[in-house]
Amino acid sequence: MLSKEENQRVTRVGPGTPMGETLRRYWMPALLAWELPAPDCPPVRLRLLGEDLVAFRATDGTIGLLEEFCPHRGASLWLGRNEENGLRCVYHGWKFDVSGQCVDQMNEPEPFCSKICAVAYGTIELGGVIWVYMGPADKQPPPPNFDWTRVPETHRSVSKGMQECNWLQALEGGIDTSHFTIMHRVLKKNSSHGGIPVDSAGVRGGPPTLELDITDYGYAYYGIRPLEDTQYARGYHYVMPYTQLRPPDLEEEQVHGHYWVPVDDENCMAWNFYYSYGEEPILDQARRNTASGNAYGSHVDVENGFRSIGNRSNDWGIDRDIQNTETFTGIDGVNQQDRAVQESMGPIVDRSREHLGPADKAIIATRKLLLEAIETVESGGDPRGTGASYHEVRAVGRILPTGADWRKELLPAMYPETGGVSP
Amino acid sequence: MLSKEENQRVTRVGPGTPMGETLRRYWMPALLAWELPAPDCPPVRLRLLGEDLVAFRATDGTIGLLEEFCPHRGASLWLGRNEENGLRCVYHGWKFDVSGQCVDQMNEPEPFCSKICAVAYGTIELGGVIWVYMGPADKQPPPPNFDWTRVPETHRSVSKGMQECNWLQALEGGIDTSHFTIMHRVLKKNSSHGGIPVDSAGVRGGPPTLELDITDYGYAYYGIRPLEDTQYARGYHYVMPYTQLRPPDLEEEQVHGHYWVPVDDENCMAWNFYYSYGEEPILDQARRNTASGNAYGSHVDVENGFRSIGNRSNDWGIDRDIQNTETFTGIDGVNQQDRAVQESMGPIVDRSREHLGPADKAIIATRKLLLEAIETVESGGDPRGTGASYHEVRAVGRILPTGADWRKELLPAMYPETGGVSP
Amino acid sequence: MLSKEENQRVTRVGPGTPMGETLRRYWMPALLAWELPAPDCPPVRLRLLGEDLVAFRATDGTIGLLEEFCPHRGASLWLGRNEENGLRCVYHGWKFDVSGQCVDQMNEPEPFCSKICAVAYGTIELGGVIWVYMGPADKQPPPPNFDWTRVPETHRSVSKGMQECNWLQALEGGIDTSHFTIMHRVLKKNSSHGGIPVDSAGVRGGPPTLELDITDYGYAYYGIRPLEDTQYARGYHYVMPYTQLRPPDLEEEQVHGHYWVPVDDENCMAWNFYYSYGEEPILDQARRNTASGNAYGSHVDVENGFRSIGNRSNDWGIDRDIQNTETFTGIDGVNQQDRAVQESMGPIVDRSREHLGPADKAIIATRKLLLEAIETVESGGDPRGTGASYHEVRAVGRILPTGADWRKELLPAMYPETGGVSP
Repeated sequence: MLSKEENQRVTRVGPGTPMGETLRRYWMPALLAWELPAPDCPPVRLRLLGEDLVAFRATDGTIGLLEEFCPHRGASLWLGRNEENGLRCVYHGWKFDVSGQCVDQMNEPEPFCSKICAVAYGTIELGGVIWVYMGPADKQPPPPNFDWTRVPETHRSVSKGMQECNWLQALEGGIDTSHFTIMHRVLKKNSSHGGIPVDSAGVRGGPPTLELDITDYGYAYYGIRPLEDTQYARGYHYVMPYTQLRPPDLEEEQVHGHYWVPVDDENCMAWNFYYSYGEEPILDQARRNTASGNAYGSHVDVENGFRSIGNRSNDWGIDRDIQNTETFTGIDGVNQQDRAVQESMGPIVDRSREHLGPADKAIIATRKLLLEAIETVESGGDPRGTGASYHEVRAVGRILPTGADWRKELLPAMYPETGGVSP
Repeated sequence: MLSKEENQRVTRVGPGTPMGETLRRYWMPALLAWELPAPDCPPVRLRLLGEDLVAFRATDGTIGLLEEFCPHRGASLWLGRNEENGLRCVYHGWKFDVSGQCVDQMNEPEPFCSKICAVAYGTIELGGVIWVYMGPADKQPPPPNFDWTRVPETHRSVSKGMQECNWLQALEGGIDTSHFTIMHRVLKKNSSHGGIPVDSAGVRGGPPTLELDITDYGYAYYGIRPLEDTQYARGYHYVMPYTQLRPPDLEEEQVHGHYWVPVDDENCMAWNFYYSYGEEPILDQARRNTASGNAYGSHVDVENGFRSIGNRSNDWGIDRDIQNTETFTGIDGVNQQDRAVQESMGPIVDRSREHLGPADKAIIATRKLLLEAIETVESGGDPRGTGASYHEVRAVGRILPTGADWRKELLPAMYPETGGVSP
Repeated sequence: MLSKEENQRVTRVGPGTPMGETLRRYWMPALLAWELPAPDCPPVRLRLLGEDLVAFRATDGTIGLLEEFCPHRGASLWLGRNEENGLRCVYHGWKFDVSGQCVDQMNEPEPFCSKICAVAYGTIELGGVIWVYMGPADKQPPPPNFDWTRVPETHRSVSKGMQECNWLQALEGGIDTSHFTIMHRVLKKNSSHGGIPVDSAGVRGGPPTLELDITDYGYAYYGIRPLEDTQYARGYHYVMPYTQLRPPDLEEEQVHGHYWVPVDDENCMAWNFYYSYGEEPILDQARRNTASGNAYGSHVDVENGFRSIGNRSNDWGIDRDIQNTETFTGIDGVNQQDRAVQESMGPIVDRSREHLGPADKAIIATRKLLLEAIETVESGGDPRGTGASYHEVRAVGRILPTGADWRKELLPAMYPETGGVSP
């Protein structure tokens, strides 16, 4: 439970808000690289932290990410022409380079370009994603070299989908390991509907015991489920401010993960990735599953701003017959199930009416860290997760003998570079 | 005319508002019983007095009516599973019985159910309708045993349709007998369009003289129209806070009526009923007319929250050619005509700009009674209409000799249990 | 650049706002005459300066323009019956004549019509347009006898289209001559897409030098472009508060023009006209071009409130391939291109973030005159443009020898009645 004031403080993301200023201290996933497929391709609109932006790939391949509206008279630069290393406003032909500098003014007999700059944010391309930093220049952290961004393209998959609720609701749904084997459960053997089969390890295990280690990038957390003769131990990471790494269902050399990036106060972009850090590439079948949303992917309308096809307006496609007999929710696809409950709470849920329990330990810790980060930023410091220690971490799951010291088994695989020492 | 402050006071219905608290002292029609057709059927969403609710029929057939959002983390219980005498949230498997008591928590190794309660409201099924009481427990009035709820199913018909304006606008349109023979007039003999034929008794009579008797349930009111050699006397009831009983067009043993139940400040549900208190059941033809909206029924899209098919977005289907030659409005169906004018006034009409006359006597009386009821509730009393005296009342119409004492003729039929004595 | 306060002051148009009161001192185009084609035809809804209105043509052909909502109980008079010299509300049959006087009350046995008046505004029909005056009666200016309203019907063309942004944004786009040869440019010879061909005089000329003469009706302004051996001089008029007269592309005896009439704070109606003041009528071809929006016309959905078919919801139909190869914007039609950039700025652009230059001279002058007019009205005076001197003015374009005194050449044609003397 949060007070109404704390809830306001931790959810709002616009310029000048406490959380907004804190979020601006991190690199954020902005676009899939293929959304700007080639030099001089059409510009792309996006909204991040409540700011309207336009992105373009210049003739030399570099990325520009500018405020959407032309500094001259406010026309949308998204209508603009991307040509010869700059984005040109169609209204009066003012042109801006990737740094935001005005370099041409077609309507002025005596141009005064050097005096005009558009707001521009720094970008970097990593792992097929264009990342942006929207904070103060002197506070820019090292590049977001997550482990998955460094594997070959054949070994990773990235997708995204719009979610119509506040980012914290989505994040809290993602780190909430306790709902996983309940909500995503498939009731019937061989069902064609996505979810966690009744006979899978996780579902068999019942509610997990949670443990949590605070780190300098956020925390690691563990869900331990006793099985018949064994125990199922899963280790996750929460990387500040909105990233989760989660283990695969089986003991594969894979990690799955999400970013829940604030679009504005009432919308977020749910990013999905998974990758193989072993020799095996990701199989085509798995890649297709991701795309179809049967696993961790999503059913999204790419042409329509990556909006989910199942959404509030169509009740997320709930089918009561399927809910009766095949899946716990009657909603198709794991991601869509998550979106459904998270969006069903309303745009920004009132956390002053909650009743949390021990199973919500990770959620409580997240809120504490976020509120702590706001205070750190307000007092001039650098919040957790702005270093580089998260670059090497991995999420893992193991089925272990009952009574085994799961921490001893999991940590070396979760922190491979330091031999299991958590930062 | 009301001041802007009075208009605000008498129209707003949310929790804590003066009118909202007053309306919470009455039983309200919430759902048609067939919307929850069987035990363990899918739950149904609804909104009443600005509160989002979810209803379900438990395994034992009883009705639960809970706040929509799960007390745990706020997911919509409408997505839930209705199973084994309780509604289970799909997010973490918390389950609530019809009293709102939490009875299971799938995500907690050590459940603490007994400490968790969802807001639940008391319900009752009468006349094929599920009624709800949302007020303080110690103030609950006797069940809403309207006369029509006690006749056999063959002798009654109930329907409903969403109306996109404040409930008071709809109520004022309903009790406004003076518009009836004007707006609903059919101009052409044998027109296929619904309304009051030009040669019907009511239309022949011209504007009525209105009289009104205040009672302990609201008021009875009378519209008297002089005909050629006779007079046409019609006796209605207004039962606090939003019910009307009206006589049939002819001297049948029938009563028609409406409830205009506030959904929120800007929407209401218009309930329609009619019944036969004689030996004759309601004819199938009449039932069909009700369904098609040609009489008192409505054209509604049941799958879409009972929204009217003719609505503001399509100008209520107005046809100017039909308006020129066949009906006064060019809009099809009596209920749709009412909805059209009432919705055309905007979501909440500004009553400080009105110009009322003697023909608006019933409307003026209604507002006085509603404002009086607010004061009664504020000073700790029980407002009119929370007793049982309205249970036996009926509406009647009679064609009488000119000069006959219409009150003497109407009252015994309007108060059959007390031999014509008004409470 | 304006301060946020000035921007608020100069853009808002509702009753009681500074700009709203000022705009109410002028005749405004309200409807195309053909929207009320015949006596007793159906009434028409419209919104002007934030007020909801209804217009009707009475049996005697005169025009009534009333507040939309019946003074009785607030039902929309647009649902009403236009019959026997009055508009009758369908709710209770109250009827109003073109002066707003109530002349019948069907629901009252003893009518009190003489005490009831609806708000009514004075109208006049000129040039196929119904004009309205919504200001104080004693301040009504002479009729808006623009030159074009006095030519034969064969010599003029008038159309209109809704624009979904504040009127000042549209006006500023219209008087902004510097964007014309940039944004509307056609890149490819013989393109079928509307705009200014690359080889036209204007486009060849590059950015114009602007000059501006303040007058008692607003200002005249001039764009001078040096060509190879000649100069291209174009003379425009801005007539207070939202009218522009512009010269044709070639040296024809024609004038084009616009009115950008405020519907409310966030919408305006863009009126387009052009006419021939010579002997030649307007050709059918030209008229068709206007209608199709390839020239100065518009692509509008007449049945849907003259809404533009290309609008924000469909990105104004931008085609990036066409933008690459054929037209500067990839948007079809000159008017649609204007709408696109103006609407892309948002409903009311924040002028405190602008960076204006010499090419924005006309825009700066317009704002000054509008702010001056507000002060004039506030101090009890008559603002510019409420006289009659604009009735005789024309816009002209001439290709002149380099070094010629363009002012001497243009003025006699721009002020034909006074032999070139500007008022």
